[in-house]
Amino acid sequence: MSKIIAVNAGSSSLKFQLFEMDDEHVITSGIVERIGMDDAIFTIKYNGEKETKTLPVPTHNEAVQLLLDTLIEKKIVHDLTDIKGIGHRIVQGGSYFDSSVVIDEDVKAKIKELIPLAPLHNGPHLIGINAFEKAIPSAGAVAVFDTAFHQSMPPKNYIYPIPYEYYTDHAIRKYGAHGTSHYYVSQRVIDLLGNPEHSNIIVAHLGAGGSLTAVKDGKSYDTSMGLTPLAGIMMATRCGDIDASVFDFMAENLGMSAHEIITTFNKKSGLLGVSGVSGDMRDVKAAAEEGNKRAQLAIEIFENRVVDYIGQYTFELGHVDAIAFTAGIGENSDFVRHDILAKITEATGIVIDEDANKNGKGERLITKPESKIKVFVIPTDEELVIARDTKRLLNL
Amino acid sequence: MSKIIAVNAGSSSLKFQLFEMDDEHVITSGIVERIGMDDAIFTIKYNGEKETKTLPVPTHNEAVQLLLDTLIEKKIVHDLTDIKGIGHRIVQGGSYFDSSVVIDEDVKAKIKELIPLAPLHNGPHLIGINAFEKAIPSAGAVAVFDTAFHQSMPPKNYIYPIPYEYYTDHAIRKYGAHGTSHYYVSQRVIDLLGNPEHSNIIVAHLGAGGSLTAVKDGKSYDTSMGLTPLAGIMMATRCGDIDASVFDFMAENLGMSAHEIITTFNKKSGLLGVSGVSGDMRDVKAAAEEGNKRAQLAIEIFENRVVDYIGQYTFELGHVDAIAFTAGIGENSDFVRHDILAKITEATGIVIDEDANKNGKGERLITKPESKIKVFVIPTDEELVIARDTKRLLNL
Repeated sequence: MSKIIAVNAGSSSLKFQLFEMDDEHVITSGIVERIGMDDAIFTIKYNGEKETKTLPVPTHNEAVQLLLDTLIEKKIVHDLTDIKGIGHRIVQGGSYFDSSVVIDEDVKAKIKELIPLAPLHNGPHLIGINAFEKAIPSAGAVAVFDTAFHQSMPPKNYIYPIPYEYYTDHAIRKYGAHGTSHYYVSQRVIDLLGNPEHSNIIVAHLGAGGSLTAVKDGKSYDTSMGLTPLAGIMMATRCGDIDASVFDFMAENLGMSAHEIITTFNKKSGLLGVSGVSGDMRDVKAAAEEGNKRAQLAIEIFENRVVDYIGQYTFELGHVDAIAFTAGIGENSDFVRHDILAKITEATGIVIDEDANKNGKGERLITKPESKIKVFVIPTDEELVIARDTKRLLNL
Repeated sequence: MSKIIAVNAGSSSLKFQLFEMDDEHVITSGIVERIGMDDAIFTIKYNGEKETKTLPVPTHNEAVQLLLDTLIEKKIVHDLTDIKGIGHRIVQGGSYFDSSVVIDEDVKAKIKELIPLAPLHNGPHLIGINAFEKAIPSAGAVAVFDTAFHQSMPPKNYIYPIPYEYYTDHAIRKYGAHGTSHYYVSQRVIDLLGNPEHSNIIVAHLGAGGSLTAVKDGKSYDTSMGLTPLAGIMMATRCGDIDASVFDFMAENLGMSAHEIITTFNKKSGLLGVSGVSGDMRDVKAAAEEGNKRAQLAIEIFENRVVDYIGQYTFELGHVDAIAFTAGIGENSDFVRHDILAKITEATGIVIDEDANKNGKGERLITKPESKIKVFVIPTDEELVIARDTKRLLNL
């Protein structure tokens, strides 16, 4: 029996999934939220039940301890040494990491060095790494980077057209994100296509954050996120691509600080900013159906920008064998998939299977046999990739 | 005989073309550069000759006077009242102007109001308008806006996914640019296609500045420039599209001011920034051919970003009847056209006519009859559009 825990440590949260790797099933999962507060919230799912409690959790160390104590208390594990590996999701691996690695002092130093590129993420990741190391010293630890899959992009797709010195001296380039999801989903599509050697796939990861990736023969060729996860398509609260002069205009004409502007772009924009209703596509859709014009416009822009990236990646790849939708909106909003596919029908010859799109469940094909491009829905599973990489690298 | 002068007033320059509108021929053209300096440069072309002189030109008023004095002196016009109309190119017309207008006090007030959206341009334009008004009070004046043609874009293509209030309260939206050129070129293509009612055209205006426009049935449907001419494709010294977080990163981590960053993006980026050689495609190509890797990369990125926009506009339009190349690079760099068309051959079924592309001159088709999309080279003529609009609106 080999147990591995996949961990995602955020600035004030700690998400986890505990796997039994013999059959890759999830034993338990949960999250500690509002770390640092007196009323932090701990949620754990086990044996089909969900339990929530509110309690003070001063730091990530206490969050890890709370989680591990609960695993023992509920007899989910007999002893903490049953957990052989910890897999940590790391948002930013820079140009250092093109695959997952066993964590050592050098890896930690590099994750720390990259904090300026992911200030909201890499710092908390390190805290999470250290907290688990302290709590289960016997377990090995692996870092799985969101950026690693995109390290295969050619320079023409990751170098920004600014003075080259900003790349060489300050590492400013396109890194992309959601790499673990794009990798998992594109691998599933390659399996389903049955042609692993030669395939051109576009993965549309549409969640609260969202990105599209052009995957050529199993490798990321281009992706819509940039130096940071702000760029690309419109998201729940992020604007995606925008004339960089808007930043300057707000600084010079509206007297806003860089911090205020970037916070506006990251937290108050996207579906929320345009609709004025919510960053959740379900709420925006409900408002749109009641006649809210801004909500309708928000959905139109959202879909349009996905269409733009499918168009641009189709032209970069030359042709496309399959498109895959994944993540919250990609998996669950059948109307978004329908609208996007309807908009690109003339350009692509896609023939949607409306029944499979609307009424099907889980992983499936949603185009008819005569469709010139196959379109799939693939539920993503980043935690499973993290657990598998952890098992492989620790030889468990 | 009806003479009209087309004027383009920049911050320290004044470009002009004097037309005889009976047969639309250019009588004379030229430029005053380095206005404000003791060694300003005045260049005038007339009767196949080019004359240059260096002299002090303190303000735009003296520049206009210098030009008009020269016209009399060289007997190009007998009397200044022979010039019946002045057509002014105006970069930013905001949402106020969807076509050219006769200039009155209200128009001047609106051009002034829009200065924050085009700080380098609208101010000098007003100075130019006033200088000509003073010098030739008998002539009518018309404003021809670079943004007017793009006012037909639907909201989904011009609203940015930031809080909606920035649009309603501060007019932050996509305006586009080069509208006069995109209008002229797309009209020529419509004439050449012989199907004015229904046509989907992509115009690639590739000059020192560059933009692509999707033109649907004669109207701008989407365009690559944004709030300002910084956005879109890579240009001579402008970066085009870039993760807006790069602005924030430079402000927060490199201690650069908003002014320094925007100047870097506008003046030191693009072909110049990546290649380190020059912002002029001819120089960059020469360096690339000598083996300069950064110059090769600069050209690759330049071409790639045009490919991306052709892909995205093809998908927005559903299908494309014709693509047109125009402006400095678009008209003269056959290798850029060749490379771009070669990259999109698989996606489009374009069959390039290599001889027409390489050895042809002027306005022409550069694809073979079997090509699924017609591709044209169309030399642009913004001044002619300005002169024609001036004639029409002043009933000359």
